[in-house]
Amino acid sequence: MAELFLYLAMVAPVSWLERCPTYKEQVVQLASKEVSTLGFLGYPVLQCADIIIVHGEIVPVGEDQLPHLELCREIVRRFNFLYGDYFKEPEALLSEVKRLPGTDGRKMSKSYGNAIYLSDDPDTIRKKVRQMITDPQRIYRTDPGHPEICLVFDLHEIYSSEEIAKVEEDCREARIGCTQCKDLLARRIADSLASFRQKRKDLLEDEGRIEGIFAQSREKVLKIADKTMADVRNLLKL
Amino acid sequence: MAELFLYLAMVAPVSWLERCPTYKEQVVQLASKEVSTLGFLGYPVLQCADIIIVHGEIVPVGEDQLPHLELCREIVRRFNFLYGDYFKEPEALLSEVKRLPGTDGRKMSKSYGNAIYLSDDPDTIRKKVRQMITDPQRIYRTDPGHPEICLVFDLHEIYSSEEIAKVEEDCREARIGCTQCKDLLARRIADSLASFRQKRKDLLEDEGRIEGIFAQSREKVLKIADKTMADVRNLLKL
Repeated sequence: MAELFLYLAMVAPVSWLERCPTYKEQVVQLASKEVSTLGFLGYPVLQCADIIIVHGEIVPVGEDQLPHLELCREIVRRFNFLYGDYFKEPEALLSEVKRLPGTDGRKMSKSYGNAIYLSDDPDTIRKKVRQMITDPQRIYRTDPGHPEICLVFDLHEIYSSEEIAKVEEDCREARIGCTQCKDLLARRIADSLASFRQKRKDLLEDEGRIEGIFAQSREKVLKIADKTMADVRNLLKL
Repeated sequence: MAELFLYLAMVAPVSWLERCPTYKEQVVQLASKEVSTLGFLGYPVLQCADIIIVHGEIVPVGEDQLPHLELCREIVRRFNFLYGDYFKEPEALLSEVKRLPGTDGRKMSKSYGNAIYLSDDPDTIRKKVRQMITDPQRIYRTDPGHPEICLVFDLHEIYSSEEIAKVEEDCREARIGCTQCKDLLARRIADSLASFRQKRKDLLEDEGRIEGIFAQSREKVLKIADKTMADVRNLLKL
Protein backbone atom coordinates (compact mmCIF):
# COMPACT_ATOMS: atom_id res chain seq x y z
CA MET A 1 0.00 0.00 0.00
CA ALA A 2 2.74 2.42 1.00
CA GLU A 3 4.68 1.34 -2.09
CA LEU A 4 1.74 1.93 -4.44
CA PHE A 5 1.15 5.29 -2.75
CA LEU A 6 4.77 6.22 -3.53
CA TYR A 7 4.39 5.34 -7.21
CA LEU A 8 1.04 7.12 -7.55
CA ALA A 9 2.57 10.18 -5.87
CA MET A 10 4.93 10.35 -8.86
CA VAL A 11 2.02 10.86 -11.26
CA ALA A 12 -0.30 12.98 -9.07
CA PRO A 13 0.16 16.71 -9.76
CA VAL A 14 0.32 18.89 -6.65
CA SER A 15 -2.18 21.29 -8.20
CA TRP A 16 -4.89 18.60 -8.34
CA LEU A 17 -4.42 17.95 -4.63
CA GLU A 18 -4.34 21.60 -3.62
CA ARG A 19 -7.73 22.03 -5.27
CA CYS A 20 -9.34 19.36 -3.05
CA PRO A 21 -12.16 20.83 -0.91
CA THR A 22 -11.08 18.90 2.21
CA TYR A 23 -7.52 20.16 1.85
CA LYS A 24 -8.61 23.76 1.25
CA GLU A 25 -10.83 23.57 4.31
CA GLN A 26 -7.94 22.37 6.45
CA VAL A 27 -5.63 25.10 5.17
CA VAL A 28 -8.19 27.72 6.21
CA GLN A 29 -8.29 26.26 9.73
CA LEU A 30 -4.50 26.24 9.87
CA ALA A 31 -4.15 29.20 12.22
CA SER A 32 -5.33 27.15 15.19
CA LYS A 33 -4.39 23.62 14.08
CA GLU A 34 -1.26 21.64 13.28
CA VAL A 35 0.57 22.76 10.17
CA SER A 36 -0.62 20.94 7.09
CA THR A 37 1.67 18.10 6.05
CA LEU A 38 2.71 16.32 2.88
CA GLY A 39 0.80 13.32 4.16
CA PHE A 40 -2.40 15.29 4.51
CA LEU A 41 -1.98 16.86 1.07
CA GLY A 42 -1.45 13.37 -0.33
CA TYR A 43 -4.38 11.78 1.51
CA PRO A 44 -6.55 11.37 -1.62
CA VAL A 45 -3.61 9.59 -3.28
CA LEU A 46 -3.44 7.23 -0.32
CA GLN A 47 -7.20 6.59 -0.60
CA CYS A 48 -6.70 5.91 -4.29
CA ALA A 49 -3.97 3.35 -3.56
CA ASP A 50 -6.31 1.72 -1.02
CA ILE A 51 -9.04 1.35 -3.62
CA ILE A 52 -7.11 0.28 -6.69
CA ILE A 53 -4.64 -2.09 -5.02
CA VAL A 54 -7.57 -4.54 -4.85
CA HIS A 55 -8.99 -3.32 -8.18
CA GLY A 56 -12.01 -1.81 -6.43
CA GLU A 57 -14.69 -1.05 -9.01
CA ILE A 58 -17.48 0.28 -6.85
CA VAL A 59 -16.87 2.45 -3.78
CA PRO A 60 -19.71 3.07 -1.33
CA VAL A 61 -19.24 6.69 -0.25
CA GLY A 62 -21.07 9.65 1.18
CA GLU A 63 -21.66 12.71 -0.96
CA ASP A 64 -18.75 14.58 0.68
CA GLN A 65 -16.29 11.98 -0.62
CA LEU A 66 -17.22 12.43 -4.29
CA PRO A 67 -14.40 14.92 -5.06
CA HIS A 68 -11.88 12.43 -3.65
CA LEU A 69 -13.23 9.65 -5.82
CA GLU A 70 -13.13 11.90 -8.87
CA LEU A 71 -9.47 12.63 -8.08
CA CYS A 72 -8.84 8.92 -7.74
CA ARG A 73 -10.31 8.39 -11.22
CA GLU A 74 -8.06 11.13 -12.63
CA ILE A 75 -4.97 9.53 -11.07
CA VAL A 76 -5.97 6.18 -12.54
CA ARG A 77 -6.41 7.77 -15.98
CA ARG A 78 -3.00 9.40 -15.76
CA PHE A 79 -1.35 6.17 -14.59
CA ASN A 80 -2.97 4.24 -17.43
CA PHE A 81 -1.96 6.90 -19.95
CA LEU A 82 1.67 6.80 -18.81
CA TYR A 83 2.18 3.10 -18.16
CA GLY A 84 -0.53 1.29 -20.11
CA ASP A 85 -4.19 0.52 -19.50
CA TYR A 86 -4.08 -1.43 -16.26
CA PHE A 87 -6.38 -0.08 -13.54
CA LYS A 88 -10.13 0.38 -13.90
CA GLU A 89 -11.63 3.72 -12.89
CA PRO A 90 -13.64 3.04 -9.72
CA GLU A 91 -17.19 4.32 -9.52
CA ALA A 92 -19.09 5.79 -6.59
CA LEU A 93 -22.03 4.02 -5.03
CA LEU A 94 -24.21 6.50 -3.19
CA SER A 95 -26.91 5.18 -0.90
CA GLU A 96 -30.51 6.27 -1.43
CA VAL A 97 -30.19 8.66 1.51
CA LYS A 98 -27.11 10.63 0.60
CA ARG A 99 -26.69 12.41 3.89
CA LEU A 100 -28.17 11.60 7.28
CA PRO A 101 -28.04 14.59 9.66
CA GLY A 102 -27.32 14.23 13.39
CA THR A 103 -29.85 15.02 16.12
CA ASP A 104 -28.79 18.69 16.07
CA GLY A 105 -29.04 19.01 12.28
CA ARG A 106 -25.27 19.13 11.79
CA LYS A 107 -23.21 16.42 10.11
CA MET A 108 -23.50 13.31 12.28
CA SER A 109 -20.30 12.87 14.26
CA LYS A 110 -19.11 11.12 17.40
CA SER A 111 -17.23 14.24 18.47
CA TYR A 112 -20.38 16.40 18.17
CA GLY A 113 -22.30 13.95 20.40
CA ASN A 114 -25.20 14.11 17.93
CA ALA A 115 -25.04 10.61 16.50
CA ILE A 116 -27.42 7.67 16.76
CA TYR A 117 -25.42 4.45 16.70
CA LEU A 118 -26.29 1.22 14.95
CA SER A 119 -25.92 -0.38 18.39
CA ASP A 120 -28.28 1.98 20.26
CA ASP A 121 -31.24 0.24 21.92
CA PRO A 122 -34.78 1.66 21.51
CA ASP A 123 -34.58 3.48 24.89
CA THR A 124 -31.35 5.26 24.02
CA ILE A 125 -32.74 6.22 20.63
CA ARG A 126 -35.89 7.65 22.25
CA LYS A 127 -33.80 9.73 24.66
CA LYS A 128 -31.68 11.09 21.81
CA VAL A 129 -34.68 11.89 19.59
CA ARG A 130 -36.51 13.57 22.50
CA GLN A 131 -33.68 16.14 22.70
CA MET A 132 -34.11 17.21 19.08
CA ILE A 133 -35.26 20.75 18.39
CA THR A 134 -38.58 20.97 16.50
CA ASP A 135 -40.46 23.69 14.67
CA PRO A 136 -39.65 26.87 16.71
CA GLN A 137 -42.90 28.52 15.58
CA ARG A 138 -45.05 25.91 17.27
CA ILE A 139 -45.20 27.03 20.89
CA TYR A 140 -48.39 25.41 22.19
CA ARG A 141 -49.53 21.89 21.62
CA THR A 142 -52.59 23.36 19.89
CA ASP A 143 -50.56 25.48 17.42
CA PRO A 144 -50.36 24.06 13.90
CA GLY A 145 -46.82 22.82 13.02
CA HIS A 146 -44.59 23.53 10.03
CA PRO A 147 -43.00 20.28 8.91
CA GLU A 148 -40.89 22.08 6.29
CA ILE A 149 -38.75 23.68 9.01
CA CYS A 150 -38.68 20.71 11.41
CA LEU A 151 -35.65 18.42 11.65
CA VAL A 152 -37.80 15.66 13.14
CA PHE A 153 -39.91 15.75 10.01
CA ASP A 154 -36.76 15.55 7.83
CA LEU A 155 -35.96 12.28 9.56
CA HIS A 156 -39.55 11.10 9.30
CA GLU A 157 -39.19 11.50 5.54
CA ILE A 158 -36.38 8.95 5.69
CA TYR A 159 -37.66 6.56 8.35
CA SER A 160 -41.45 6.87 8.04
CA SER A 161 -41.79 7.34 4.31
CA GLU A 162 -44.82 5.08 4.08
CA GLU A 163 -46.90 7.14 6.46
CA ILE A 164 -45.28 10.49 5.70
CA ALA A 165 -48.51 12.08 4.41
CA LYS A 166 -50.27 11.25 7.67
CA VAL A 167 -47.38 12.58 9.81
CA GLU A 168 -47.43 15.83 7.89
CA GLU A 169 -51.18 16.26 8.18
CA ASP A 170 -51.25 15.41 11.90
CA CYS A 171 -48.57 18.03 12.51
CA ARG A 172 -50.12 20.79 10.40
CA GLU A 173 -53.49 20.28 12.00
CA ALA A 174 -52.08 19.94 15.52
CA ARG A 175 -53.61 16.50 15.89
CA ILE A 176 -50.32 15.22 17.28
CA GLY A 177 -47.84 16.80 19.76
CA CYS A 178 -44.09 17.05 19.23
CA THR A 179 -43.26 14.48 21.92
CA GLN A 180 -45.69 12.00 20.42
CA CYS A 181 -44.26 12.71 16.97
CA LYS A 182 -40.69 12.18 18.25
CA ASP A 183 -41.61 8.91 19.92
CA LEU A 184 -43.04 7.68 16.63
CA LEU A 185 -39.80 8.64 14.86
CA ALA A 186 -37.73 6.94 17.58
CA ARG A 187 -39.76 3.73 17.10
CA ARG A 188 -39.26 3.85 13.33
CA ILE A 189 -35.51 4.38 13.74
CA ALA A 190 -35.28 1.61 16.33
CA ASP A 191 -37.22 -0.73 14.00
CA SER A 192 -34.92 0.03 11.09
CA LEU A 193 -31.86 -0.72 13.24
CA ALA A 194 -33.28 -3.84 14.91
CA SER A 195 -31.71 -6.30 12.50
CA PHE A 196 -28.32 -4.51 12.66
CA ARG A 197 -28.47 -4.59 16.44
CA GLN A 198 -29.28 -8.29 16.47
CA LYS A 199 -26.53 -9.11 13.95
CA ARG A 200 -24.05 -7.10 15.96
CA LYS A 201 -25.05 -8.84 19.17
CA ASP A 202 -24.70 -12.28 17.58
CA LEU A 203 -21.26 -11.41 16.23
CA LEU A 204 -20.04 -10.00 19.52
CA GLU A 205 -21.05 -13.20 21.29
CA ASP A 206 -18.88 -15.19 18.91
CA GLU A 207 -15.57 -13.31 18.92
CA GLY A 208 -13.64 -16.06 17.20
CA ARG A 209 -15.89 -15.68 14.19
CA ILE A 210 -15.02 -12.00 13.72
CA GLU A 211 -11.32 -12.75 13.96
CA GLY A 212 -11.82 -15.58 11.49
CA ILE A 213 -13.52 -13.22 9.02
CA PHE A 214 -10.69 -10.71 9.44
CA ALA A 215 -8.00 -13.33 8.93
CA GLN A 216 -9.76 -14.73 5.89
CA SER A 217 -10.31 -11.29 4.33
CA ARG A 218 -6.76 -10.32 5.08
CA GLU A 219 -5.44 -13.36 3.28
CA LYS A 220 -7.69 -12.72 0.31
CA VAL A 221 -6.70 -9.05 0.09
CA LEU A 222 -2.97 -9.73 0.49
CA LYS A 223 -3.04 -12.18 -2.41
CA ILE A 224 -4.71 -9.67 -4.72
CA ALA A 225 -2.49 -6.82 -3.53
CA ASP A 226 0.71 -8.85 -4.07
CA LYS A 227 -0.35 -9.62 -7.62
CA THR A 228 -1.21 -5.95 -8.25
CA MET A 229 2.17 -4.78 -6.98
CA ALA A 230 4.02 -7.34 -9.12
CA ASP A 231 2.08 -6.07 -12.17
CA VAL A 232 2.73 -2.44 -11.27
CA ARG A 233 6.47 -3.00 -10.81
CA ASN A 234 6.48 -4.64 -14.22
CA LEU A 235 4.64 -1.73 -15.83
CA LEU A 236 7.03 0.72 -14.20
CA LYS A 237 9.99 -1.45 -15.30
CA LEU A 238 11.29 -1.66 -11.73
CA MET B 1 11.41 2.53 2.53
CA ALA B 2 8.06 3.40 0.97
CA GLU B 3 6.45 2.76 4.36
CA LEU B 4 8.86 5.05 6.21
CA PHE B 5 8.32 7.69 3.50
CA LEU B 6 4.59 7.48 4.16
CA TYR B 7 5.03 8.03 7.90
CA LEU B 8 7.52 10.87 7.44
CA ALA B 9 5.13 12.51 4.97
CA MET B 10 2.68 12.79 7.87
CA VAL B 11 5.09 15.02 9.81
CA ALA B 12 6.64 16.98 6.92
CA PRO B 13 4.88 20.33 6.39
CA VAL B 14 4.14 21.20 2.77
CA SER B 15 5.57 24.69 3.31
CA TRP B 16 9.03 23.30 4.14
CA LEU B 17 9.03 21.37 0.87
CA GLU B 18 7.75 24.24 -1.24
CA ARG B 19 10.69 26.32 -0.02
CA CYS B 20 13.23 23.83 -1.38
CA PRO B 21 15.48 25.41 -4.05
CA THR B 22 15.33 22.34 -6.32
CA TYR B 23 11.52 22.33 -6.17
CA LYS B 24 11.24 26.07 -6.80
CA GLU B 25 13.57 25.69 -9.79
CA GLN B 26 11.37 22.95 -11.24
CA VAL B 27 8.19 24.97 -10.76
CA VAL B 28 9.74 27.83 -12.74
CA GLN B 29 10.53 25.46 -15.61
CA LEU B 30 6.97 24.10 -15.51
CA ALA B 31 5.76 25.83 -18.68
CA SER B 32 7.79 23.51 -20.89
CA LYS B 33 8.10 20.42 -18.66
CA GLU B 34 5.81 17.82 -17.11
CA VAL B 35 3.54 19.14 -14.36
CA SER B 36 5.11 18.91 -10.96
CA THR B 37 3.90 15.96 -8.91
CA LEU B 38 3.37 15.06 -5.28
CA GLY B 39 6.27 12.65 -5.63
CA PHE B 40 8.60 15.39 -6.78
CA LEU B 41 7.45 17.73 -4.02
CA GLY B 42 8.11 14.94 -1.53
CA TYR B 43 11.49 13.95 -2.96
CA PRO B 44 13.48 15.34 0.01
CA VAL B 45 11.24 13.29 2.33
CA LEU B 46 12.09 10.20 0.29
CA GLN B 47 15.81 11.03 0.54
CA CYS B 48 15.36 11.46 4.27
CA ALA B 49 13.74 8.02 4.58
CA ASP B 50 16.65 6.57 2.55
CA ILE B 51 19.19 8.04 4.96
CA ILE B 52 17.58 7.42 8.32
CA ILE B 53 16.19 3.93 7.65
CA VAL B 54 19.79 2.74 8.10
CA HIS B 55 20.51 5.38 10.77
CA GLY B 56 22.92 7.19 8.45
CA GLU B 57 25.01 9.63 10.48
CA ILE B 58 27.28 11.06 7.81
CA VAL B 59 26.12 11.77 4.26
CA PRO B 60 28.70 12.52 1.56
CA VAL B 61 27.07 15.21 -0.60
CA GLY B 62 27.82 17.99 -3.02
CA GLU B 63 27.17 21.58 -2.01
CA ASP B 64 23.89 21.68 -3.96
CA GLN B 65 22.43 18.96 -1.75
CA LEU B 66 22.93 20.84 1.52
CA PRO B 67 19.37 22.29 1.62
CA HIS B 68 17.97 18.77 1.25
CA LEU B 69 20.09 17.51 4.10
CA GLU B 70 19.03 20.42 6.27
CA LEU B 71 15.39 19.56 5.53
CA CYS B 72 16.12 15.95 6.44
CA ARG B 73 17.48 17.12 9.80
CA GLU B 74 14.33 19.20 10.39
CA ILE B 75 12.09 16.23 9.62
CA VAL B 76 14.11 14.09 12.04
CA ARG B 77 13.77 16.75 14.74
CA ARG B 78 10.02 16.93 14.21
CA PHE B 79 9.67 13.13 14.25
CA ASN B 80 11.70 12.91 17.46
CA PHE B 81 9.68 15.72 19.04
CA LEU B 82 6.38 14.01 18.23
CA TYR B 83 7.24 10.36 18.83
CA GLY B 84 10.28 10.32 21.09
CA ASP B 85 14.01 10.71 20.53
CA TYR B 86 14.78 7.93 18.10
CA PHE B 87 16.61 9.05 14.96
CA LYS B 88 19.95 10.87 14.93
CA GLU B 89 20.24 14.00 12.79
CA PRO B 90 22.54 13.08 9.90
CA GLU B 91 25.44 15.39 9.06
CA ALA B 92 26.86 16.39 5.70
CA LEU B 93 30.33 15.34 4.61
CA LEU B 94 31.60 17.70 1.91
CA SER B 95 34.71 16.76 0.00
CA GLU B 96 37.67 19.12 -0.09
CA VAL B 97 36.69 20.18 -3.61
CA LYS B 98 33.06 21.12 -3.17
CA ARG B 99 32.21 21.50 -6.80
CA LEU B 100 34.03 20.22 -9.88
CA PRO B 101 32.96 22.04 -13.06
CA GLY B 102 32.58 20.27 -16.42
CA THR B 103 34.79 20.99 -19.47
CA ASP B 104 32.51 23.88 -20.47
CA GLY B 105 32.47 25.46 -17.01
CA ARG B 106 28.88 24.43 -16.30
CA LYS B 107 27.82 21.85 -13.72
CA MET B 108 29.28 18.51 -14.81
CA SER B 109 26.54 16.39 -16.33
CA LYS B 110 26.17 13.44 -18.65
CA SER B 111 23.36 15.20 -20.53
CA TYR B 112 25.54 18.28 -21.14
CA GLY B 113 28.30 16.07 -22.63
CA ASN B 114 30.83 17.99 -20.53
CA ALA B 115 31.86 15.32 -18.05
CA ILE B 116 35.12 13.48 -17.54
CA TYR B 117 34.37 9.95 -16.33
CA LEU B 118 36.24 7.95 -13.74
CA SER B 119 36.59 5.33 -16.47
CA ASP B 120 38.06 7.63 -19.16
CA ASP B 121 41.51 6.57 -20.38
CA PRO B 122 44.32 9.18 -20.72
CA ASP B 123 43.65 9.64 -24.46
CA THR B 124 39.95 10.38 -23.96
CA ILE B 125 40.77 12.79 -21.15
CA ARG B 126 43.30 14.62 -23.37
CA LYS B 127 40.72 14.97 -26.14
CA LYS B 128 38.12 16.36 -23.73
CA VAL B 129 40.55 18.79 -22.10
CA ARG B 130 41.81 19.98 -25.51
CA GLN B 131 38.27 21.22 -26.28
CA MET B 132 38.14 23.46 -23.24
CA ILE B 133 37.94 27.20 -23.77
CA THR B 134 40.88 29.14 -22.31
CA ASP B 135 41.61 32.78 -21.57
CA PRO B 136 39.80 34.66 -24.41
CA GLN B 137 42.20 37.60 -24.09
CA ARG B 138 45.22 35.49 -25.08
CA ILE B 139 45.11 35.40 -28.86
CA TYR B 140 48.73 34.65 -29.84
CA ARG B 141 51.03 32.11 -28.27
CA THR B 142 53.28 35.02 -27.32
CA ASP B 143 50.52 36.99 -25.49
CA PRO B 144 50.72 36.78 -21.69
CA GLY B 145 47.80 34.74 -20.18
CA HIS B 146 45.33 35.55 -17.42
CA PRO B 147 44.93 32.46 -15.21
CA GLU B 148 42.22 34.16 -13.13
CA ILE B 149 39.76 33.96 -16.06
CA CYS B 150 40.85 30.54 -17.39
CA LEU B 151 38.83 27.39 -16.68
CA VAL B 152 41.88 25.24 -17.40
CA PHE B 153 43.69 27.04 -14.60
CA ASP B 154 40.71 26.46 -12.25
CA LEU B 155 41.18 22.76 -12.81
CA HIS B 156 44.94 23.03 -12.46
CA GLU B 157 44.32 24.45 -8.99
CA ILE B 158 42.57 21.20 -8.12
CA TYR B 159 44.72 18.68 -9.99
CA SER B 160 48.16 20.35 -10.07
CA SER B 161 48.12 22.06 -6.69
CA GLU B 162 51.79 21.18 -5.99
CA GLU B 163 53.11 22.97 -9.05
CA ILE B 164 50.37 25.61 -9.26
CA ALA B 165 52.77 28.54 -8.76
CA LYS B 166 54.86 27.41 -11.74
CA VAL B 167 51.77 26.87 -13.94
CA GLU B 168 50.59 30.38 -13.16
CA GLU B 169 53.98 31.97 -13.86
CA ASP B 170 54.48 30.06 -17.13
CA CYS B 171 51.07 31.24 -18.33
CA ARG B 172 51.45 34.90 -17.31
CA GLU B 173 54.86 35.11 -18.92
CA ALA B 174 53.81 33.20 -22.04
CA ARG B 175 56.49 30.57 -21.45
CA ILE B 176 53.91 27.87 -22.12
CA GLY B 177 51.14 27.62 -24.78
CA CYS B 178 47.53 26.71 -24.07
CA THR B 179 47.76 23.30 -25.75
CA GLN B 180 50.85 22.41 -23.76
CA CYS B 181 49.11 23.65 -20.59
CA LYS B 182 46.00 21.56 -21.36
CA ASP B 183 48.10 18.44 -21.99
CA LEU B 184 49.74 18.91 -18.60
CA LEU B 185 46.27 19.18 -16.98
CA ALA B 186 45.06 16.12 -18.87
CA ARG B 187 48.07 14.14 -17.56
CA ARG B 188 47.41 15.27 -13.99
CA ILE B 189 43.70 14.32 -14.25
CA ALA B 190 44.60 10.97 -15.83
CA ASP B 191 47.12 10.32 -13.02
CA SER B 192 44.57 11.12 -10.35
CA LEU B 193 42.06 8.73 -11.93
CA ALA B 194 44.57 5.94 -12.63
CA SER B 195 43.87 4.00 -9.46
CA PHE B 196 40.07 4.34 -9.92
CA ARG B 197 40.39 3.11 -13.49
CA GLN B 198 42.48 0.13 -12.41
CA LYS B 199 40.09 -0.76 -9.57
CA ARG B 200 37.13 -0.49 -11.92
CA LYS B 201 38.84 -2.70 -14.47
CA ASP B 202 39.65 -5.34 -11.86
CA LEU B 203 36.08 -5.34 -10.60
CA LEU B 204 34.57 -5.57 -14.07
CA GLU B 205 36.75 -8.61 -14.82
CA ASP B 206 35.33 -10.34 -11.76
CA GLU B 207 31.59 -9.83 -12.10
CA GLY B 208 30.69 -12.38 -9.46
CA ARG B 209 32.50 -10.29 -6.90
CA ILE B 210 30.35 -7.20 -7.57
CA GLU B 211 27.19 -9.23 -7.28
CA GLY B 212 28.52 -10.74 -4.10
CA ILE B 213 29.17 -7.29 -2.64
CA PHE B 214 25.64 -6.19 -3.65
CA ALA B 215 24.03 -9.28 -2.14
CA GLN B 216 26.02 -8.91 1.07
CA SER B 217 25.22 -5.20 1.39
CA ARG B 218 21.59 -5.82 0.62
CA GLU B 219 21.34 -8.38 3.37
CA LYS B 220 23.07 -6.07 5.84
CA VAL B 221 20.85 -3.14 4.93
CA LEU B 222 17.61 -5.16 5.01
CA LYS B 223 18.40 -6.35 8.53
CA ILE B 224 18.93 -2.82 9.81
CA ALA B 225 15.92 -1.46 7.90
CA ASP B 226 13.63 -4.19 9.27
CA LYS B 227 14.68 -3.36 12.81
CA THR B 228 14.16 0.38 12.17
CA MET B 229 10.65 -0.18 10.80
CA ALA B 230 9.70 -2.39 13.75
CA ASP B 231 10.89 0.36 16.12
CA VAL B 232 9.06 3.07 14.14
CA ARG B 233 5.79 1.13 14.10
CA ASN B 234 6.15 0.78 17.86
CA LEU B 235 6.76 4.49 18.34
CA LEU B 236 3.75 5.29 16.14
CA LYS B 237 1.69 2.72 18.06
CA LEU B 238 0.75 0.91 14.83
